[in-house]
Amino acid sequence: MENGVPPPQRWRFEGNDRLTRAGAVTVRGVLNVVMENLDGNDTRPVIHLGQGDPSAFPSFRTTHFAEDAVCAAVRSAQFNGYSSTVGIPSARSAVAQYLSKELPYKLSADDVFLTIGCAQALEAVVTVLARPGVNILLPRPGFPFYEARASFSSLEVRHFDLVPEKDWEVDLASVEALADENTVAMVIINPGNPCGNVFKYEHLKKVAETAKNLGILVIADEVYDHLTFGSNPFVPMGVFASIAPIITLGSISKRWVVPGWKLGWLVLNDPDRILTKQGIVDSIVGFLNITSDPATFMQGAAPQILENTPSDFFQKIISTLRECADICYEQSKEIPCITCPSKPEGSMFAMIKLNLSLLEGITDDLDFCCKLAKEESIVVLPGFAVGLKNWLRVTFATEPSSLDDGFLRIKTFYQRHAKKQ
Amino acid sequence: MENGVPPPQRWRFEGNDRLTRAGAVTVRGVLNVVMENLDGNDTRPVIHLGQGDPSAFPSFRTTHFAEDAVCAAVRSAQFNGYSSTVGIPSARSAVAQYLSKELPYKLSADDVFLTIGCAQALEAVVTVLARPGVNILLPRPGFPFYEARASFSSLEVRHFDLVPEKDWEVDLASVEALADENTVAMVIINPGNPCGNVFKYEHLKKVAETAKNLGILVIADEVYDHLTFGSNPFVPMGVFASIAPIITLGSISKRWVVPGWKLGWLVLNDPDRILTKQGIVDSIVGFLNITSDPATFMQGAAPQILENTPSDFFQKIISTLRECADICYEQSKEIPCITCPSKPEGSMFAMIKLNLSLLEGITDDLDFCCKLAKEESIVVLPGFAVGLKNWLRVTFATEPSSLDDGFLRIKTFYQRHAKKQ
Repeated sequence: MENGVPPPQRWRFEGNDRLTRAGAVTVRGVLNVVMENLDGNDTRPVIHLGQGDPSAFPSFRTTHFAEDAVCAAVRSAQFNGYSSTVGIPSARSAVAQYLSKELPYKLSADDVFLTIGCAQALEAVVTVLARPGVNILLPRPGFPFYEARASFSSLEVRHFDLVPEKDWEVDLASVEALADENTVAMVIINPGNPCGNVFKYEHLKKVAETAKNLGILVIADEVYDHLTFGSNPFVPMGVFASIAPIITLGSISKRWVVPGWKLGWLVLNDPDRILTKQGIVDSIVGFLNITSDPATFMQGAAPQILENTPSDFFQKIISTLRECADICYEQSKEIPCITCPSKPEGSMFAMIKLNLSLLEGITDDLDFCCKLAKEESIVVLPGFAVGLKNWLRVTFATEPSSLDDGFLRIKTFYQRHAKKQ
Repeated sequence: MENGVPPPQRWRFEGNDRLTRAGAVTVRGVLNVVMENLDGNDTRPVIHLGQGDPSAFPSFRTTHFAEDAVCAAVRSAQFNGYSSTVGIPSARSAVAQYLSKELPYKLSADDVFLTIGCAQALEAVVTVLARPGVNILLPRPGFPFYEARASFSSLEVRHFDLVPEKDWEVDLASVEALADENTVAMVIINPGNPCGNVFKYEHLKKVAETAKNLGILVIADEVYDHLTFGSNPFVPMGVFASIAPIITLGSISKRWVVPGWKLGWLVLNDPDRILTKQGIVDSIVGFLNITSDPATFMQGAAPQILENTPSDFFQKIISTLRECADICYEQSKEIPCITCPSKPEGSMFAMIKLNLSLLEGITDDLDFCCKLAKEESIVVLPGFAVGLKNWLRVTFATEPSSLDDGFLRIKTFYQRHAKKQ
């Protein structure tokens, strides 16, 4: 305190590296890097094929039946208060009925836990499973939010491959090879993000049998359920719950095209009550007791939304997605430096392989996407963000006309950068 | 595998004790225990003075201006998609303006992070601060969600006292005595839950000065902001942000009586940018990047709700709360075995001291509440749930007529159990 100058204040609090590290690679973070390259002087509209959220496009506007249900719940003043931490009974029951239609057994309301979108369901299951020393098996390519939550919870991740030559089926031999006595679960995303594949009944059955052999549970991420438009119908993993216990994650986000409405679910497909016996259910309840809940009026609206949405809304969305998937697959054939190994049959995504040897001065997938953004005002996700370097994840859920335009821009970009023969 | 019987399957996954332990004492959990004693044969309506959620009572119905804002946002189809993880700019800006009205400086949109109710804001700040070895100072009595989140995050908790004889002011000497070089923050809840007190300007200033001396930050839980009806006006802790950095937690839940709508905020009151320099802001962003967001349309409705709600709605709620607080304070004087040390001036709660020596066969606060529920169909929270054994937390935010009725029932209960002189 010489000369009356006080010493600098010492503050004892500081940030938490675990949080910044956990979210280091996220789809949104990588897209931000790509979008920083957009050229503000380009007068053409930016074409966004980066994120799985087509809610802003006219072709994907949600149904007014869903809007009506939410507004009626708000105006009823019946759903302004706190809900039970596991969800209000009418909404749990509605989700149970909705999902039971395609299962060989009936779910009860008690099997359903309502969550803040599918993201909180994923957060719940990862947090519940994380104990010192255990590991979880995740698909590669996959959805990096799993890796982020596992990192935050100090849950070790091991990756099994999805095989592009086999319509992105799980490499079950690699699953068996990766697992050990500390493996607790594997994640299956169906319809596939980021591959746009739809698993066949027989393959899912083999997944369940593998899980049973390993003594692990299957986390079935079915947030894209029913968004299928190819030859394989959607089969819920819960169909195989008598083989191994299944925890199904889902939401209204994708089928109703309202990812901002934040109503999801975590569902126990477990007729033998193995998850209860192993303490998993108590831990899920414990997790929900110390976190926030989905808006109560969204829960109040759930029965109307799930039961009363007319099928022509779903058909229209499916038909638009089919048209988009066709454009994506056919147009990619016209561009030598990219290959789509199989036509997307579900979700909103396709994985497309880059052939860098045909390009001059492009070092990798990130470089490709950054230059593409800069020169052609189009945003595509570099594959490394979902676990496959030098691939691209293309979201085809957009207006069909801008998808056509987007592939024309990629073709122009290729021609400008093609290696001279 | 003798006789062809397969060995019992061994499942490798199991529950996570940390989750069940963390939520062991919650307000809802303790109330469930009390409510199990309700007598189904009692034909009188149950009077609920347990939880701070008056949204179901006609006197506390929210304003149609708020309902209109939510429905307009839903029907606009502008807010169906994902929001930014920190919140949409228009909503961040609206919260900044709303809170700046009472501060000596202007908050910017970047100071505001939108959360899923105040609960997620609390979760964020506790998670961000938790590092091995550090500790946080919490008030006793308090709000047990802090203890639950701290336990989950392995953040050590130390309790300082609120002094009933001094209108529940903070015992600042005990704060100084508890803190050490590993203390990172202290929590101030104002208006007070569970005490119903409102801190004076001069006392809050001393809190900030104490925090500065200790080098810690102040977490100002102001979820009950503006719900004051006594002689002390509400003073936001942010007024003292030039003394020590303040993180303010709030929401629309209480002032608009919509705890189920799940829109809250975490706000940096930090003109010197100390929280940025110490890495706290990066960690908050990191936390929000790997968790779910408040419904986008709720964010879209926020500017309308915050700016256009007419003051007569707020006045009506305040006037009802004042009437209820009066009933609570005056009626408790009529019952010898309970004492309310000072008249509630804010929030929705009063702490009332039990004098067990005047009662026959009542062992403690939990026993009192369970027997009261059974015999008189009235639900009150035992004080141990908020940190003060052999006190009661009474929620006076209910219809005034049932509050009158409730105290009559407590009086009858006292007369039945009074110790013979």
